[in-house]
Amino acid sequence: MKLSTLLPAWLRHYRRTSLSGDATAGLVVAVMLIPQSLAYALLAGLPPEVGLYASILPVIAYAALGSSMTTAVGPVAVTALMTASALAPWAALAPAGSAAYATLAAALAGLSGLMLLAFGLLRLGFLAHFLSHPVTSGFVSGSAVLIAVGQMKHVLGVKVDAHNLPGMLWQLAQALPQTQAVTLAVGGGSLAFMWLARGHAARLLQAAGLSPNAADLGAKLAPMLAVAVATALAAGLDLAARHGLAVVGAVPQGLPVMQLPWPGAEALRELLLPAALISLVGFVGSVSVAQTLALKRSERIVPDRELLGLGAANVASAVSGGFPVTGGFSRSVVNFAAGAQTPLAGVFTAMGMAIVIAAFTGLFFHLPQAVLGATIIVAVTGLIDFKTLRDAWRYDRADALALLATAAGVVLAGVEAGIAVGVVLSLGVLVWRSSRPHIAVIGRVPGTQHFRNLERHRVQTVPGLLALRVDESLFFANASAVEAHIEARVAADPGVRQVLLVCSAVNAIDTTALGVLSELEQRLAQRGVQLLLAEVKGPVMDRLQPTPLGQRLRGRVFLSTHEAFLHAAEPRAGADADARAASTSCSASPPGTSEPG
Amino acid sequence: MKLSTLLPAWLRHYRRTSLSGDATAGLVVAVMLIPQSLAYALLAGLPPEVGLYASILPVIAYAALGSSMTTAVGPVAVTALMTASALAPWAALAPAGSAAYATLAAALAGLSGLMLLAFGLLRLGFLAHFLSHPVTSGFVSGSAVLIAVGQMKHVLGVKVDAHNLPGMLWQLAQALPQTQAVTLAVGGGSLAFMWLARGHAARLLQAAGLSPNAADLGAKLAPMLAVAVATALAAGLDLAARHGLAVVGAVPQGLPVMQLPWPGAEALRELLLPAALISLVGFVGSVSVAQTLALKRSERIVPDRELLGLGAANVASAVSGGFPVTGGFSRSVVNFAAGAQTPLAGVFTAMGMAIVIAAFTGLFFHLPQAVLGATIIVAVTGLIDFKTLRDAWRYDRADALALLATAAGVVLAGVEAGIAVGVVLSLGVLVWRSSRPHIAVIGRVPGTQHFRNLERHRVQTVPGLLALRVDESLFFANASAVEAHIEARVAADPGVRQVLLVCSAVNAIDTTALGVLSELEQRLAQRGVQLLLAEVKGPVMDRLQPTPLGQRLRGRVFLSTHEAFLHAAEPRAGADADARAASTSCSASPPGTSEPG
Repeated sequence: MKLSTLLPAWLRHYRRTSLSGDATAGLVVAVMLIPQSLAYALLAGLPPEVGLYASILPVIAYAALGSSMTTAVGPVAVTALMTASALAPWAALAPAGSAAYATLAAALAGLSGLMLLAFGLLRLGFLAHFLSHPVTSGFVSGSAVLIAVGQMKHVLGVKVDAHNLPGMLWQLAQALPQTQAVTLAVGGGSLAFMWLARGHAARLLQAAGLSPNAADLGAKLAPMLAVAVATALAAGLDLAARHGLAVVGAVPQGLPVMQLPWPGAEALRELLLPAALISLVGFVGSVSVAQTLALKRSERIVPDRELLGLGAANVASAVSGGFPVTGGFSRSVVNFAAGAQTPLAGVFTAMGMAIVIAAFTGLFFHLPQAVLGATIIVAVTGLIDFKTLRDAWRYDRADALALLATAAGVVLAGVEAGIAVGVVLSLGVLVWRSSRPHIAVIGRVPGTQHFRNLERHRVQTVPGLLALRVDESLFFANASAVEAHIEARVAADPGVRQVLLVCSAVNAIDTTALGVLSELEQRLAQRGVQLLLAEVKGPVMDRLQPTPLGQRLRGRVFLSTHEAFLHAAEPRAGADADARAASTSCSASPPGTSEPG
Repeated sequence: MKLSTLLPAWLRHYRRTSLSGDATAGLVVAVMLIPQSLAYALLAGLPPEVGLYASILPVIAYAALGSSMTTAVGPVAVTALMTASALAPWAALAPAGSAAYATLAAALAGLSGLMLLAFGLLRLGFLAHFLSHPVTSGFVSGSAVLIAVGQMKHVLGVKVDAHNLPGMLWQLAQALPQTQAVTLAVGGGSLAFMWLARGHAARLLQAAGLSPNAADLGAKLAPMLAVAVATALAAGLDLAARHGLAVVGAVPQGLPVMQLPWPGAEALRELLLPAALISLVGFVGSVSVAQTLALKRSERIVPDRELLGLGAANVASAVSGGFPVTGGFSRSVVNFAAGAQTPLAGVFTAMGMAIVIAAFTGLFFHLPQAVLGATIIVAVTGLIDFKTLRDAWRYDRADALALLATAAGVVLAGVEAGIAVGVVLSLGVLVWRSSRPHIAVIGRVPGTQHFRNLERHRVQTVPGLLALRVDESLFFANASAVEAHIEARVAADPGVRQVLLVCSAVNAIDTTALGVLSELEQRLAQRGVQLLLAEVKGPVMDRLQPTPLGQRLRGRVFLSTHEAFLHAAEPRAGADADARAASTSCSASPPGTSEPG
């Protein structure tokens, strides 16, 4: 095996033509990432340099193992909030901003990374689809509202320490009189600037002669401009010393030191659940962005490899003093739009960030926290999604309610409760729905081999035959309901001698349903009623055949509903006819003769 | 409204002929319930009288609201173990056997009862099917092993305080030299007697002239005989004082005093999760027994009413100094076999228990704990279920592994971890399975209107038409996989001009899948590929029609695959044909002409 096969495929087959796109995109993302990483560190309750640390090694680790060509990894708003929430119970031992707090945050990234790696090795990439879209949307929107309101304290220059929306709003209302004028001017000004830029900058830049793509990118860099101008203002007028404007302050210069974060065994155990939730949320979010972007260029995302890539990124973050990272939405979109062709763009981003932290952290001293807060507010309000709620409300009320409940869980009880509500509702709605399957009594549409619902169509039936089509796979959640339905129908009509289950919509029968079906067959047999099956799918039949029920049903499973009806209509069908006899009875009218025209 | 309509239906329509059966069954169950209720109180770490309290009012409350004619409510082994496990963290503040501990246990019953009542009012009876049969079986078997091994300490007369299987086995092995000879003689003797009785007593009694039913019942009362003989021996020989045999001791005489258990708000909050788990397990177990018995007599169990019945029973248990109760397996079977016709049997049971506690608790003073331990061991070993494991292993490996993982979770990490593992695996297996749907490319079986898998049958296709049958409902767990599959197939064959989705097995499309399908349609359209649907079920179409996707698809949704193929084969089909044109093209060969024979 040659050494080069250890390199990722994109690097082995790298085409020089991709280089300019990758370099441009990588550096544009770095420029965007600087204020973002500082801001999200602030949001997570960590010193600003931690945000920068989390934007170097993790990016390279993802480039080595991930499957997306354009995902830009680093700190993101939602996982930063989840980090703060996970570490809140430790406030007494490890207050926000302390070294112990940073160790816990790095350990959280490490645990999350190991879990993601393990899930990747176990090929559990399907977990990316464990949350329904409405529930994910509700979670993200709820988190965005919580984050945006939570950042208002930085824009106003007041103290707020509540962790849920009502508490925050109450404290903000009470603290309003203490608003610091200069802080509000800087924060409110940059907020207004960035908001206007988001709405109009692209159009203005395009009018000024830039290409649409370049104009879009330029508009995305407006926050960086706000940061630069506000920092220059704060430094020039010495707003921190003279007017008490909160600024970032001294950021240690130099690359992160490698070390294993070890907060103790008990702390690690308590961080397990939060780490699992952060992994799930980060993974689902990152994969959905990656898939959206990949489809635009007919590239392919492999969820199992995304698990490995994000896992490696978080382990890298943990050992380089960072905190949980994942693929960011806006950042990946910028990376894509700026022309990233391969993960080499990420390597350029990491290099840019490394240069900044090695030499230029002094530039951030006068950066006002109010501007960082405003950056976050503008970023997260873009995540609030009313469209999915509106669509779901029209299309499927249960999905819309699951969305609202998840969002309510987040803003009222926090992100962890919210995600728990979301998972339970995603799965609960699924089970609830399939626990009440649609069951139709069917008959033959006169003059055809088509069989339709008795209640919707005028159809022919065979006396003594109860033909039912169950529109759902049979499994633990609905097996008893189906059984009870059949028992009730048979009990209601003493003339029934045969029950035909048409399985065209039964895609699987699990162990629970097999047991129920087997009992049903025996109980029906005791009353002299035969159970027949038709249109059992190949994979389902393969499993059913060798079971005791499969043995007992031999000769009573028909390829088509038509054949089952012919069999049931035979006078001697009840006794000992078997499948061959049934097919013989069909041979008088082989399928060929029914060909129209 | 007449007052009598407030009475349960079984009481309003009570037939005098049922009275003798109900009275006999009620008293037989009471005899069986006496040692059981004492033993399960012991297992839960509670004083013996609590077990008796939990067997009076709860039984009457269930009779008033439940829907089963034969369920016998009271303490059961698994919920007793869960109670002990839930209260273990409180050992410092409320050691087992203390009044504070009893208050916590009653509060647990109260919370569980209120939850069950709330679920009943919200009509969440479908929750009874939230756990798959293999997972339930694994949970019960694991619990039974844990309970049986845990009771060995009473039979040996040694101290064991571990809460998991390896710990218990290790401590038992170490304590073996301290085994008390007299305790082992009493405990081992009754164990051997009950085991033999279970295997052979029914046969012997039948040989002695009893009817099969009576012989079966007599055999079920063997534990009561063991209790009586051992108690008489212990009293006569004064084994407690002379040989240190642990006996039940003084049991307070008199009916329970009504009071509200109030352990404080914080304790209540911490008991919420254990109460929810106890509710779930108790409910699932009770409903499954009730349904098994009801089907034998063509009676009907209404899960929503079972929630109300069990909820009321637990609230009644809470206010009368009891602990969590539910319908017991062996007890309900005995009730059924002894001829219970209505819940009046439960009223007789409660009366019997009330008389015992009001006047005869002195009889229990010399009852050896070793015999109670032996009773529990014999009872729970009957719950260990290898058959489901064996069947699942043959039929569906994933279900078998879920069973084993749940059982392992219980014996290694406790009942709460076990049930969590079980719920996650039940749902995880479900999502995992439906996340990888079977997708077949289909073609027309020559000379028919039947369409089958291209890979399994020799079929005809239409050039430029890719016809796919997705064998699964479309929802959040599989929508992306289906989309990726279709994209890959279209990308692999540039000749494709139309993609037909045959939806005969699609029983539902959720909001997530609708979004994915809508994007897919647009992306295909951009490449000049048309999306067609066929055999969309009525309820699915009703929802799809008013959506933007439904509007765009107008004229491209066909009743049958046959019609879609005819449409696709038309030379001008690609352009602006609509549904009416398509049906017109079919009218040359109306369904009627295809009638065979």
